[in-house]
Amino acid sequence: MQEIKNVLILGAGTLGSRIGLQAAISNYSVTVYDIHESALEQSLNVMHKVLKYAVKMGMIKEEDKPTVLTRIKFTTNPHDAVKVADIISESVTENPTVKEKVWKQFGELAPAKTIFTTNTSYLLPSQFAAISGRPEKFCAFHFHDVFTARVVDIMPHPGTHPDLIPLLFDFGKKLNQVPVLVKKESPGYIFNFMLMALIGAAGRLKTKEIGSIEDIDKSWMVNFNMPMGPFGILDNIGLDTAWHVTKDREDHASKDFAALLKMYVDQGKLGEKSGEGFYRYPNPAYKDVDFLTK
Amino acid sequence: MQEIKNVLILGAGTLGSRIGLQAAISNYSVTVYDIHESALEQSLNVMHKVLKYAVKMGMIKEEDKPTVLTRIKFTTNPHDAVKVADIISESVTENPTVKEKVWKQFGELAPAKTIFTTNTSYLLPSQFAAISGRPEKFCAFHFHDVFTARVVDIMPHPGTHPDLIPLLFDFGKKLNQVPVLVKKESPGYIFNFMLMALIGAAGRLKTKEIGSIEDIDKSWMVNFNMPMGPFGILDNIGLDTAWHVTKDREDHASKDFAALLKMYVDQGKLGEKSGEGFYRYPNPAYKDVDFLTK
Repeated sequence: MQEIKNVLILGAGTLGSRIGLQAAISNYSVTVYDIHESALEQSLNVMHKVLKYAVKMGMIKEEDKPTVLTRIKFTTNPHDAVKVADIISESVTENPTVKEKVWKQFGELAPAKTIFTTNTSYLLPSQFAAISGRPEKFCAFHFHDVFTARVVDIMPHPGTHPDLIPLLFDFGKKLNQVPVLVKKESPGYIFNFMLMALIGAAGRLKTKEIGSIEDIDKSWMVNFNMPMGPFGILDNIGLDTAWHVTKDREDHASKDFAALLKMYVDQGKLGEKSGEGFYRYPNPAYKDVDFLTK
Repeated sequence: MQEIKNVLILGAGTLGSRIGLQAAISNYSVTVYDIHESALEQSLNVMHKVLKYAVKMGMIKEEDKPTVLTRIKFTTNPHDAVKVADIISESVTENPTVKEKVWKQFGELAPAKTIFTTNTSYLLPSQFAAISGRPEKFCAFHFHDVFTARVVDIMPHPGTHPDLIPLLFDFGKKLNQVPVLVKKESPGYIFNFMLMALIGAAGRLKTKEIGSIEDIDKSWMVNFNMPMGPFGILDNIGLDTAWHVTKDREDHASKDFAALLKMYVDQGKLGEKSGEGFYRYPNPAYKDVDFLTK
């Protein structure tokens, strides 16, 4: 089995930074690439924040923080970035044109050994496999949030070489993730496909005026002993993101739900990140001690 | 607001027994009615078992058990059962013909003051409101499991008198439940509607061979920090019950999923209760310490 030592992260956003940091914690040499210098600076901030959390949770020791950080390099130079890469984890903007451009560029620059993985949320690896120039080494390898929701989806496209699966499975475990195999291409992989079904049902209960947002969330929270319900989860995901995923669906229920989301988005209510969505932050009603009993 | 003192439970199955017991714990006088003497004996067994759990969880004190039980009467005589009832909670077999018969009978026997509630899981109150003879006093009042999943759905039909809602809301709280209002009739109320959407999506991932049962469950468990995933939940619900709810749906995904469930049911694999479903009991794989990491 091909050995992985050097990991290249393409795109220094939140998720890319978290993947890079976990790889460094797991003893890999990591290079984080972005076209913007400012994104790389922001990436280091994200890593410092996550490291604090990792220390607090006992994932690493305080005194190991500097060593972890010495394993990470930042660059805006694509040639430098890719020259020793054993594997690329791409987390650039969720836009097919941007991803195509990046994969064309790095497909040409990367050494023959380099394995290509995309962390896309809703696009499919087959959309970028050909343009990368090495479809057999191309696979989706999709993280959730790396440190708390520790699932990584391994989703090959029809042209992915079968040997890549056990290699990525092993790599995922070394990154402290629970690897799951998505045997056929599926937008949203496994978890997001189920989450979207749940959220769609919650949206339908609301748009058909069967239940209030609070009662729908209470039902879920109490029955599954969870800290939030579907609308709290939506606020967490971002209503703009949820709208993007829903807006092009053809069925009536999705159209109604997209219209509801759009109403919030148009008012600037994007969820937790904007301070208001279905609930108000930083103290949403569902976190009140008497939310369930009042 | 009409005062509730005497509660009549129709149908001494597991859920009826649990509702009756909680009502007794909450200081109501309770009568449990069933046509079978043996069902009443079994009901008392259920109550003893639940009381042990309630003591263990600190819901009641050991020394209060006898007093709670003195508040409960058992009878096979419908006249005796109903004569002082302020409210009826009906949990007879989930069969329209049986429920119609029971509501016709008790509609004729009950005093004018008696409020009628049905604990049906998937049928609608409007199916029984007219035959009960007092549609304005008829409402669905649906428990989940009373002691752990403490949600009660209040679901009126179009003819339910609006005053009944706050009364049932208050009664639900006194029974230590989280009452939620289902503003329009909806099969499966709020929670089950969402649960079915989730389970349907999980079924689709399996029947389309996108993910294995274990990987689907792992994805859910890790992302939501839950003790089981959709297939574990299905084993808990009972595959026969899930098949019943799914079998008459018209869409392709439901048909495929119903066929999968039927295959298990035909082999006697009904889930936890039969010792095997998607997993084997009493030690299902998802409870193994290394389920997520192996």
